[in-house]
Amino acid sequence: MAYLNDNYLKLKAGYLFPEIGRRVKVFCEANPEAARRLIRCGIGDVTEPLPQAVIAAMHKAVDEMAARETFKGYGPEQGYEWLRHAIAQNDFRERNLDLADDEIFVSDGSKCDCGNILDILGAKNKIAISDPVYPVYGDTNVMAGHTGEANEAGAYAKLVYLPCKPGNGFIPEPPKKHVDVIYLCSPNNPTGAAANRPQLEAWVKYALEHKSVILFDAAYEAYITDANLPHSIYEIPGARECAIEFRSFSKDGGFTGTRCAFTVVPKSLNAETKSCEFKPLHPLWLRRTTTKFNGVSYIVQRGAEALYSMEGKAQVRGLIEHYLGNAKILREGAKKAGLKVFGGANAPYIWVRTPKGVTSWQAFDRILGEANVVITPGSGFGSKGEGYFRISAFNSRTNAEEVARRLQGLKW
Amino acid sequence: MAYLNDNYLKLKAGYLFPEIGRRVKVFCEANPEAARRLIRCGIGDVTEPLPQAVIAAMHKAVDEMAARETFKGYGPEQGYEWLRHAIAQNDFRERNLDLADDEIFVSDGSKCDCGNILDILGAKNKIAISDPVYPVYGDTNVMAGHTGEANEAGAYAKLVYLPCKPGNGFIPEPPKKHVDVIYLCSPNNPTGAAANRPQLEAWVKYALEHKSVILFDAAYEAYITDANLPHSIYEIPGARECAIEFRSFSKDGGFTGTRCAFTVVPKSLNAETKSCEFKPLHPLWLRRTTTKFNGVSYIVQRGAEALYSMEGKAQVRGLIEHYLGNAKILREGAKKAGLKVFGGANAPYIWVRTPKGVTSWQAFDRILGEANVVITPGSGFGSKGEGYFRISAFNSRTNAEEVARRLQGLKW
Repeated sequence: MAYLNDNYLKLKAGYLFPEIGRRVKVFCEANPEAARRLIRCGIGDVTEPLPQAVIAAMHKAVDEMAARETFKGYGPEQGYEWLRHAIAQNDFRERNLDLADDEIFVSDGSKCDCGNILDILGAKNKIAISDPVYPVYGDTNVMAGHTGEANEAGAYAKLVYLPCKPGNGFIPEPPKKHVDVIYLCSPNNPTGAAANRPQLEAWVKYALEHKSVILFDAAYEAYITDANLPHSIYEIPGARECAIEFRSFSKDGGFTGTRCAFTVVPKSLNAETKSCEFKPLHPLWLRRTTTKFNGVSYIVQRGAEALYSMEGKAQVRGLIEHYLGNAKILREGAKKAGLKVFGGANAPYIWVRTPKGVTSWQAFDRILGEANVVITPGSGFGSKGEGYFRISAFNSRTNAEEVARRLQGLKW
Repeated sequence: MAYLNDNYLKLKAGYLFPEIGRRVKVFCEANPEAARRLIRCGIGDVTEPLPQAVIAAMHKAVDEMAARETFKGYGPEQGYEWLRHAIAQNDFRERNLDLADDEIFVSDGSKCDCGNILDILGAKNKIAISDPVYPVYGDTNVMAGHTGEANEAGAYAKLVYLPCKPGNGFIPEPPKKHVDVIYLCSPNNPTGAAANRPQLEAWVKYALEHKSVILFDAAYEAYITDANLPHSIYEIPGARECAIEFRSFSKDGGFTGTRCAFTVVPKSLNAETKSCEFKPLHPLWLRRTTTKFNGVSYIVQRGAEALYSMEGKAQVRGLIEHYLGNAKILREGAKKAGLKVFGGANAPYIWVRTPKGVTSWQAFDRILGEANVVITPGSGFGSKGEGYFRISAFNSRTNAEEVARRLQGLKW
């Protein structure tokens, strides 16, 4: 009698994006005219082509795979040394952050790593996530058996939810009680907020005092424009002893369909064994990676490397400026429409307060039905997201301008 | 106090291939002359370039990523429909095996999937693996906490080991006792044996009687040349109710560094919940895939699709014939050297009995030192692998011929 993992049965069936897809489909089938002018600002997927430097590097890599002399078979599971070096050098050491090449693990996605990291952590950990939250943090903990059942609002027993609200700038404060593992996402998906230095210092202080581990998701790091904001948790002294950082090429290089990311596991980061010893997590993650992963495609790793060339860096800056330009237009459009707006300055997401008495899903249906624009209802990210919606700035400039106009045409 | 996953501490430190790497390094540094004539027949990594059809398809896909109109962002996590269709149609339906497109899950590697599949299975399952065995099956179960500690021979408590020996053609028979989950690998890594129909029928019968799940690793399926041997477990009636099959493009298309594979989870496959209901595993694997994975690179999926074109199929046949030609040469060379030889007819691995009184590692050292050839000691795959070594046929023809010659020059 083979047993299945019962924890999966606790997962709430209606995952956010499938439900959005369903409603959009129903609407479009009923309104073919409106369907033709539909603009999608829902899912956080990039729209602009890959940088030319990446295209050239990938063509070259494909050609290498065509000849016996230059063909590449299995690479190191944790990534080629030249890519790990380029990452550690450009993203960390040149910013005076002391990280070694072999503390970088190249992977096929931050989403994957955020889930997989639980493999090396124990089952007894008390887990904290924010509310609203990127759903993967919660769902992967449900799957791993770290939670109880969900209540009617969708909150799982045993998880500690940290509220994000205007009062804390949508960055949660450390809780009064003890937690072992904390997910932080900055710049934040979905709220578009970015943590400042004092906020991250408070978290590192808490984690060091509590011997907790911070899982710091910085997938949107490239969107930080405010010079005072930290780009990495390792800018905070002590973070090397308490934090794992997740980065991605999805949203800077436009790799959502190309697939490459990386995770930083400092060698100085320890966790406790059952026999109350402290041992480093780095060898566990290395062992996990070499046993359960086979590395990212050589062709894709060469593409990622090209993002660090002079030409690649300039092209990435162009992409970021494009999406942040959209964000500005959307922010202003929503403001002119009389809506209260957060985020969108150091992130590609705008977090909008719904008009009084309008729920997130009501706003979704109104904006879909009247403006023919798809947004994401905030309540889909957690109960504290109720009364908000998220607009994604990943779009063409024309579409961003059109959405800004249409928002202003809405009568609430 | 964050806790680590103590199960990782049970893993035996000396993983096979790192130890081989260490010995080769020591030898080469001490013997620079011999190092220059070293031939590697150890790790199962392909050596020949990707088929031209794949190269052309990937160039085209890279170009698509360079233009806004054809750019691809996030794809379906479980793979593009056109690739799932090509797989289901060519590998199954055209062989009269009834599998739907959405029972195919495209992934970045069979190794990954063989590990990840444990996510959806319960913790109480009694797990059976063969001995010798591809190490990932055992190690991932250790990591998941399904075992006790290892004994001195490297066998983990609670795992059921099924011996593979000449008497059963290196394909294990169903055990007398009950097990819930069974790993079968055919054509087999490391022994090069391929299961025949009666052997698989016995397993399906056992699994249906015991309501067990068979995890069928068919990564080397393309090497089956004997017309009587099944290519898929689904050729056995009833397998749709008890088996998951893993396939890979690594060893047929030469994708070891390109990364693409797939897993078949039939919708008719059930497992038991804690409340003793039977529920299908398909929705769990779909949920796992959509939550913890983000799909394979678009470029790579287009490359994999090209393997199913007329041109691609012919080029794959050429690759397989090349490696099987090597296998024949190596088999005959080892036989002429007076060694007893198994496998290598329907698989790219030759499983060789060491001369009497010679252990696997002694054979490794002798072959490295005297023939300057790297093989894999059988004992590295389990205690029943002691007294054998594995020769990989993944090489150039020249190297295969040279290795065959050198083996004959060895005085045991």
